[in-house]
Amino acid sequence: MKRFVLPPDCQGPGEVTLSGNDFHYLCRVRRLKGGDSVPAMLTDGSRFVLSLIERGSNSCRARVLPDPDTERESEAGGDDIPPIELYQAVPKGRVLDDVVRRCVEAGVTRVVPVYTDFTVAAAQREGSERTRREERLQRIARSAAEQCGAVRLPEIAPAVELSEVPSFATKEDAAFYLHQEPLAEQSLHGYLEATIRKVVLAVGPEGGFSPRELRLLEHKGFCPVYLGPQVLRTENAAFFAVAAIRVLLLERESWTTRNRQT
Amino acid sequence: MKRFVLPPDCQGPGEVTLSGNDFHYLCRVRRLKGGDSVPAMLTDGSRFVLSLIERGSNSCRARVLPDPDTERESEAGGDDIPPIELYQAVPKGRVLDDVVRRCVEAGVTRVVPVYTDFTVAAAQREGSERTRREERLQRIARSAAEQCGAVRLPEIAPAVELSEVPSFATKEDAAFYLHQEPLAEQSLHGYLEATIRKVVLAVGPEGGFSPRELRLLEHKGFCPVYLGPQVLRTENAAFFAVAAIRVLLLERESWTTRNRQT
Repeated sequence: MKRFVLPPDCQGPGEVTLSGNDFHYLCRVRRLKGGDSVPAMLTDGSRFVLSLIERGSNSCRARVLPDPDTERESEAGGDDIPPIELYQAVPKGRVLDDVVRRCVEAGVTRVVPVYTDFTVAAAQREGSERTRREERLQRIARSAAEQCGAVRLPEIAPAVELSEVPSFATKEDAAFYLHQEPLAEQSLHGYLEATIRKVVLAVGPEGGFSPRELRLLEHKGFCPVYLGPQVLRTENAAFFAVAAIRVLLLERESWTTRNRQT
Repeated sequence: MKRFVLPPDCQGPGEVTLSGNDFHYLCRVRRLKGGDSVPAMLTDGSRFVLSLIERGSNSCRARVLPDPDTERESEAGGDDIPPIELYQAVPKGRVLDDVVRRCVEAGVTRVVPVYTDFTVAAAQREGSERTRREERLQRIARSAAEQCGAVRLPEIAPAVELSEVPSFATKEDAAFYLHQEPLAEQSLHGYLEATIRKVVLAVGPEGGFSPRELRLLEHKGFCPVYLGPQVLRTENAAFFAVAAIRVLLLERESWTTRNRQT
């Protein structure tokens, strides 16, 4: 069920006037008429119903109403899988658009683009190109969240250098980076067995993280994880890992790690 | 490490002349010179080394040699994850190209396009368009396999009607179809716990399988599997499932299902 994301200046119940892309989506794509309603949410994830009052030629008036289903769903538990944050090395060209779109669809709640030693997109590190990209990624994340009925609007953070990535040292944060060699101390099952508050995933650029960066990541509390011999392209690596993490967390009650006999 | 797929008429060790796309890839993209070698394989997956003898302006001569690493790798085990076959409902337009490319990269060994009740691409069911599509998918699968260093060349079967899909009734075949509701009898972990010979995955079109088709799939031995509340687009559903299946199989020795106390 698609959920319309209300404009950032909307604070909650009341009347709103919608124009531009919002008008286009509601009145032309969804073809709403006066009296029709759609599920909606604020950018903080709180849920409402949007009811169309009147449709003009370039804008429409609508009412934001409390969502009668919210309470029922929160009782039922909803999507109680821990949030997944993705630190993604900035790839070449528009590949990041695709990574954001698909990872949001898979359930990632926050994406932080990261500049690394092997990041080719150096020219994009500053100025107006960077601002344009951030705005574009926000739009993509919003539209992906609407499409897939996300429980909350994912956050796209401004890009940072790898050295600015925070440390995840507590036991409740499961922080990983993808590694091409099976040198991980534990399986993904092993890492996700404890009760965790959130998952943090770092994905390198084509060519991987540099040795200096691997030391930095380990120092910040990230553990290596090996997901098999297949060589994934940059645009697929994060989605592959997120899919596996989501299913392990979804089925968390159904499995336990095996005590190997030595 | 990319592995060059030798032309279908090549039978094993000996001399070959390569032109067209093969020449372009080896001499222009990889920029091989006389004496250079690349890993290569026959379409049946057997491995060789291709050593360039002489480069012309539109073709090159090369020698197919035994691969000294093959024996070593087969001792080490290689990719011993059971094969994954994908029965994918034919989506609109060129979406199937993308599904094949990414699923081969993720480790799928065989793709069978399937026509279903809700398949929109009805016009493509016959004639020259169908043949062209099959050839294009073969090319895409071959190129994806080369890119990701696949152990064997994946097979793209001709498209079939859902009623023509075989039955998978033995315990060694784990056959699933993706379902949007959590009505599965078992978790994915539960299904994959037994020793299995291969995994068979059926993915429906936008709008899902029809009730008639669900009965047909169940009758053929497919079990429903629920992979979470996120709503995935058709082009992402198979890849998401394959990623989870691969990681569960890769880590098979590290987990066991929990006996729930009732």
